[in-house]
Amino acid sequence: MNIIKAEIRSGAYFDSVILMQLQRSLAALPGVIDAGVVMGTDANKDILSHANLLPPESQNAKADDLVIVVQAKNETDALAALDQVDDLLFNRRDRIEHDYHPKSLDSAIDMIPDAQWVLVSVPGRYAAGVARQALDLDKNVFLYSDNVSLEDEVELKQLAIKKRRLVMGPDCGTAIINGVGLGFANKVRRGSIGMVAASGTGLQQVSSLIHQLGSGITHAIGTGGRDLSEEVNAVTFLQGLELLRSDAETKVIVLVSKPPSKMVVEKLITTARLSGKPVVVDFIGYATPVRQIENIYFTTTFDETAELAVKLASAEQHLESEAELPLDRFVSQQSYLRGLFSGGTLAYEAMLILNNYLPEIYSNVPLKKEFRLADSLVSQRHTIIDLGEDEFTVGRLHPMMDNDLRLRQLQNEAEDPETAVILLDVVLGYGAHPNPAGEIAPAIIKAYKTAEKAGRYLEVVVVVVGTEEDPQGLESQIDQLKQAGARVETSNSSAAGYVGRLLSTLNSHSAENDQPLTASVDLEVLNQPLAAINVGLESFTSSLKSQDAEAVQVDWRPPAGGNEKLMGILERMKTK
Amino acid sequence: MNIIKAEIRSGAYFDSVILMQLQRSLAALPGVIDAGVVMGTDANKDILSHANLLPPESQNAKADDLVIVVQAKNETDALAALDQVDDLLFNRRDRIEHDYHPKSLDSAIDMIPDAQWVLVSVPGRYAAGVARQALDLDKNVFLYSDNVSLEDEVELKQLAIKKRRLVMGPDCGTAIINGVGLGFANKVRRGSIGMVAASGTGLQQVSSLIHQLGSGITHAIGTGGRDLSEEVNAVTFLQGLELLRSDAETKVIVLVSKPPSKMVVEKLITTARLSGKPVVVDFIGYATPVRQIENIYFTTTFDETAELAVKLASAEQHLESEAELPLDRFVSQQSYLRGLFSGGTLAYEAMLILNNYLPEIYSNVPLKKEFRLADSLVSQRHTIIDLGEDEFTVGRLHPMMDNDLRLRQLQNEAEDPETAVILLDVVLGYGAHPNPAGEIAPAIIKAYKTAEKAGRYLEVVVVVVGTEEDPQGLESQIDQLKQAGARVETSNSSAAGYVGRLLSTLNSHSAENDQPLTASVDLEVLNQPLAAINVGLESFTSSLKSQDAEAVQVDWRPPAGGNEKLMGILERMKTK
Repeated sequence: MNIIKAEIRSGAYFDSVILMQLQRSLAALPGVIDAGVVMGTDANKDILSHANLLPPESQNAKADDLVIVVQAKNETDALAALDQVDDLLFNRRDRIEHDYHPKSLDSAIDMIPDAQWVLVSVPGRYAAGVARQALDLDKNVFLYSDNVSLEDEVELKQLAIKKRRLVMGPDCGTAIINGVGLGFANKVRRGSIGMVAASGTGLQQVSSLIHQLGSGITHAIGTGGRDLSEEVNAVTFLQGLELLRSDAETKVIVLVSKPPSKMVVEKLITTARLSGKPVVVDFIGYATPVRQIENIYFTTTFDETAELAVKLASAEQHLESEAELPLDRFVSQQSYLRGLFSGGTLAYEAMLILNNYLPEIYSNVPLKKEFRLADSLVSQRHTIIDLGEDEFTVGRLHPMMDNDLRLRQLQNEAEDPETAVILLDVVLGYGAHPNPAGEIAPAIIKAYKTAEKAGRYLEVVVVVVGTEEDPQGLESQIDQLKQAGARVETSNSSAAGYVGRLLSTLNSHSAENDQPLTASVDLEVLNQPLAAINVGLESFTSSLKSQDAEAVQVDWRPPAGGNEKLMGILERMKTK
Repeated sequence: MNIIKAEIRSGAYFDSVILMQLQRSLAALPGVIDAGVVMGTDANKDILSHANLLPPESQNAKADDLVIVVQAKNETDALAALDQVDDLLFNRRDRIEHDYHPKSLDSAIDMIPDAQWVLVSVPGRYAAGVARQALDLDKNVFLYSDNVSLEDEVELKQLAIKKRRLVMGPDCGTAIINGVGLGFANKVRRGSIGMVAASGTGLQQVSSLIHQLGSGITHAIGTGGRDLSEEVNAVTFLQGLELLRSDAETKVIVLVSKPPSKMVVEKLITTARLSGKPVVVDFIGYATPVRQIENIYFTTTFDETAELAVKLASAEQHLESEAELPLDRFVSQQSYLRGLFSGGTLAYEAMLILNNYLPEIYSNVPLKKEFRLADSLVSQRHTIIDLGEDEFTVGRLHPMMDNDLRLRQLQNEAEDPETAVILLDVVLGYGAHPNPAGEIAPAIIKAYKTAEKAGRYLEVVVVVVGTEEDPQGLESQIDQLKQAGARVETSNSSAAGYVGRLLSTLNSHSAENDQPLTASVDLEVLNQPLAAINVGLESFTSSLKSQDAEAVQVDWRPPAGGNEKLMGILERMKTK
């Protein structure tokens, strides 16, 4: 018959490594079958109970009580094991404390004044205090500890903004700064991909996959899982994004998180768009109706994220820079797109893509009914008309066969002083007009002349759908349209993307300037050789040293020996 | 001073080509500035009005009145032009009718008995009648006409199911059958990609891009834009999918549509999954939380669709076939997944992917709160536990450092007779356990033995995150786990995808058999040389002939000379 004996020690503090080692040492003693050493939280008592390690006398243990349980073959062995607890705790300390460890953050800083970082992995209830102390000393904080309150997180991050410092975490498992992994981190090649992640294992999986694909990482900034909540408001995420934007070595940026709140998503996307670098966004499982908006690429899995980042890092971007857009040629009244489509689904796809640049597009087949044109032939602001709709084809040939109505509309739009861009599709193939460009090209020339006479510029963009084998011949159709002055694409999304970039830039310039980015952190945090002070898990210090980073371990003890009441009094005294 | 003269002809029928040509001929007469020839619908009168071609006396024209308007320099020229209307109409007929054209569908069939297809492009109000007649004669129908009622569409497609025939349309602009384009179609290479599309220009753009990328099309089946509505219930789409599934030449299937209703989407996805071929789905702008479910790939733009289809057509699929899954090794009670994760975001991504296979996954961090575990340590049905959650880490090291709790849970799950698959993550790197496989591999061996003793099989799948440069060494960790008998992946999505396929197949086999596919259409419709009867736009007959397809044009006239009242009486007499 096995017997279970337990001991409860109130208000005693030991770090998790010591508790784990005590448990293992107890379990290895003669006659002992199993052992449990935990803080007396409900979850921990539940775990003991499932392991048949919770005798009735331990069920009342409190969250800050240390519970030590031994299951043995007989009472003698059980009691003998419990008798050795102090020796086991003492022996361990003896083995570990061969190096000198400063007892406080201040004295650690004396030893290693260049340290830009403080790593904090003390128990959650003490962690915010240590982090605050580090910020007060102008250090950046890697806050590994979990079980830190949301209020503390908000307060710490607001303080970080003032101090122009980063607080990664709480519950930040991983980061890679200037080639050195903090906390849990894989050893990955240096490269040109920078990451910001509100997800520890997401960062680890993606950075590992990037390494396996032959590419590498500049810096990977963790934020903690709650950074993208509305309360925290993405403080660290935005700081990280801004750092990577400024960092010349970072060519591609990867953002990883669980789906954030809508408000936060919008802020992140806006900031990412302004970064001017390709940004791969994996808001894991976040459903987007498009996969790309300008320089932003949405992915849904870690595999896809890593693959796309590597692809983008090795390719040159082909988007026109702002300087290449013909912005200066328009006069002030010219603002709007006028799309005249013969293909219904081409019109639909174009609106869907354009919607990311121009949220309000009027149409006879609008994406949202509030943007339905009052009169299908009278444009309002940005307008796309599907001329193949049923309303236009009673006793009239489809616009792929008969261009008459479209050419009349084209001329009307050219006469409108508010028109900036005209977007057309030309669909080739059997059944279609034998030479559409033969009619459309002269109409485009006439439209240009109309605008020119009125002192305006006009941009005409045409998407041509077809193949070289089509009766009309793809190349000769394209040539005619180009010679008329049109910009010609064979991909509808490329055409829509170009028009969207052009008009959103044009209208934002006349309206207001780009939003300033978030409060910035000094870039030297990324570029100086990493030196850090570690408060908590000693293994993090070992990891830093094995990566040739300078590191000092603080021999931290909870204030007031872990006594909560006394700690509260001390805390109140400090803030006075 | 210009003058406008108009003439209205009641109840007269002319096809759209003739109206267009009459308009052009009138506009070319001496002294004529512009001309309009349209049926008197509100939309058409609006168009005339915008072109300054609607004199007051024409404003009362009705939808089936022909309105002829001439704008000329003076009254004499205007009246002279109108005087020539009959001559112009007559001359045209004279020019066109050099070939013999049968007057009815029946006599056309006598001329070309092998014709499997009837193309219908007569005005909308007559189109359903012609299509019904074609179905009654056991022909497949390509119904180009628009302005056909939804009720007629539903009725025609229900009749098509009974007849095992296809009705593509109404408002079906395009199709490619056995290399021959119907309606509007681009000339594209024959290849191994089959398409079904509820979108005409979508089909044209994607098939053109596939051609431009060097690949080709087997068949492309149009359905008309309303086929995926709940009313029509995807009849033609499902028939098309079933045809392409059966067609040996089709290696990859592409589906294109605007986003269908939720109910219809689910039916399509289920059918597509059962097709056993890679299916690229572009429900343009349809937001999905994952990009791939087994053999289904979601895209959002035509470019992406074409590129992915071409890539899939040139690559071999690597998904295990059902035969390769270890389905027979499990005993009947074994049904469930038990996932024990140390990485929170890995757990989240795994649930998200698994959700496509196993809709109900319980967790301490569930995707939906109704699947929250009552007790985080007690699995219910399919369960994934994140052991790194705050509840488990008070005074306990993170499971990446301390495997104790996870190994206990692993053994518990192995003892549960309902457990079929155990899924674990192992995260390597700095800060993590120095040799996790050294502890986990023996525990896996013990778990296998436990199951074996109880007469059960167990599948253990492990995703290892890390690099070869990590302190633990990726390869040696993988080797230890593989030697213990685990299936090891380095991609979390691959691991989750495999587990999902395995368990959904296992559970569907024990539950019920695969749903039968939709009512099928005889495959010979795709594989015989195409021969067609064309009722409506003569240019479609010319197109067919230029593609070396056999085709006969019917010299169609509306019943009762287009007189609506008389037509109604005739229709009622027929149905008696």
